[in-house]
Amino acid sequence: MVFYLIGLGLGDVEDITVKGLNVVRKCKRVYLEAYTSILCYGLEKKQLEEYYGRDVIEADRTTVEQNSDEILTDADTEDVAMLVVGDPFGATTHADLVLRAKEKGIVVKVVHNASIMNAVGCCGLQLYNFGETVSIVMWLDNWEPDSYYDKIAINLSKGLHTLCLLDIKTKEQSVENMMRGRKVYEPARYLTCSEACKQLITISKRKREEGTEPIYTENTRVVGLARVGWDDQKIVSCSMLEMCSVDMGPPLHSLIIPGNTHPLEDDMLATFALKTL
Amino acid sequence: MVFYLIGLGLGDVEDITVKGLNVVRKCKRVYLEAYTSILCYGLEKKQLEEYYGRDVIEADRTTVEQNSDEILTDADTEDVAMLVVGDPFGATTHADLVLRAKEKGIVVKVVHNASIMNAVGCCGLQLYNFGETVSIVMWLDNWEPDSYYDKIAINLSKGLHTLCLLDIKTKEQSVENMMRGRKVYEPARYLTCSEACKQLITISKRKREEGTEPIYTENTRVVGLARVGWDDQKIVSCSMLEMCSVDMGPPLHSLIIPGNTHPLEDDMLATFALKTL
Repeated sequence: MVFYLIGLGLGDVEDITVKGLNVVRKCKRVYLEAYTSILCYGLEKKQLEEYYGRDVIEADRTTVEQNSDEILTDADTEDVAMLVVGDPFGATTHADLVLRAKEKGIVVKVVHNASIMNAVGCCGLQLYNFGETVSIVMWLDNWEPDSYYDKIAINLSKGLHTLCLLDIKTKEQSVENMMRGRKVYEPARYLTCSEACKQLITISKRKREEGTEPIYTENTRVVGLARVGWDDQKIVSCSMLEMCSVDMGPPLHSLIIPGNTHPLEDDMLATFALKTL
Repeated sequence: MVFYLIGLGLGDVEDITVKGLNVVRKCKRVYLEAYTSILCYGLEKKQLEEYYGRDVIEADRTTVEQNSDEILTDADTEDVAMLVVGDPFGATTHADLVLRAKEKGIVVKVVHNASIMNAVGCCGLQLYNFGETVSIVMWLDNWEPDSYYDKIAINLSKGLHTLCLLDIKTKEQSVENMMRGRKVYEPARYLTCSEACKQLITISKRKREEGTEPIYTENTRVVGLARVGWDDQKIVSCSMLEMCSVDMGPPLHSLIIPGNTHPLEDDMLATFALKTL
């Protein structure tokens, strides 16, 4: 039989494909990968169960990474599926699960779906003109990493756009709770476009203080995207400095730093220009 | 009312999302963008009409690019949709259509789906580690462009993977038919992984003849992908030279030239290694 990896798309229950839905309905067991992006997208187990008319089993990080045998039990004799928000190949851990299934001689099939990696095309910037994707890490009190600056710099020097995925902190424990071994988690936190731009501007100022001309300035154009594919999706094109005070609303946010643009790309971005009163 | 752009995904009628299908069923008019990838994917108007239980209007390149007013007629008072294979933002022309709709004050909504741009993750290479995407052009008798070599070189020098989209020739006319004004088209042709690798090796040899050490050789590892997301999907990992004699089967083909790989990426690619007898 088959182990299916099914992409759920951008976060609405109806974003599943017809093929995916048919597979979900016929599988013996259906798992929901519950630790990368589910929580932030608001897709909950209960909501999916109602929509599918069947049970769904939540699989947390430990189960997926360390107890994959549990997920794959009997997958050689029965169909089993794991649901993943976006496309199933956004995160390394699924490659891991695929490898273990293949080792066991289980057939693996993938039902693809949209992910932020291709859906960002909706702002009008051509996917072909993107360079390497970067992750912007949320700065904490004493930890301000800036390694993504170099990747943005390489892309910009080649005229390429950069998609910046913004950090998500879920299931984080306070130092006290961690030390006491209490499984109490802090509320989830999401890096916003505004916070990301503040970090980027700080990095550019540090570069200048260190005697290097930064590859971008606070006047560089950026594109903020929030809740892509949702009914309340928001896209704003403005300067990095302006973005620092734009409220893009609830998560998830992503940020693009455009490289060289084609006139048609400019025309599309103009439709998302910040409306100043 | 709304003008919807609906992604059809990777080419099976059931790859449409549930949301997309619901929109198709309620719209007054539904167009099928019939010139970029439909033909090669094998999704035909008749098949879609049967599946949706409604009429679908084929929109060729001229209609989409020059007569967009026809598509957008009454879209301010009625819901109209255009179906696009993959995700709607693979091709520039849709940005164009979106702009014209916005100029007319028509609300535009997008139903995203998988496209080759994110589905290639199924080979195990991390999407985050891809550089700029390139298009490999089919060589004709007296026309052997190689501008994509430089982009591949830049990606490889940064350790990044390169997704190579392979050329498609549809609705091409012979010189004679064109001169006689006869709308007779040659059979569609698709660049294969094998042909693409032959071109790439020729380019690398020319570089060497010109005194430049090429960034890759015929021993460089490549990954061939055919019919991604289909039941008969085929993925093969081997050297560029070996790929020259691999039959990947019917279109569409894509080729990846991996950059630096993580051990988990290597493990995944190993599962697609060419089986030599």
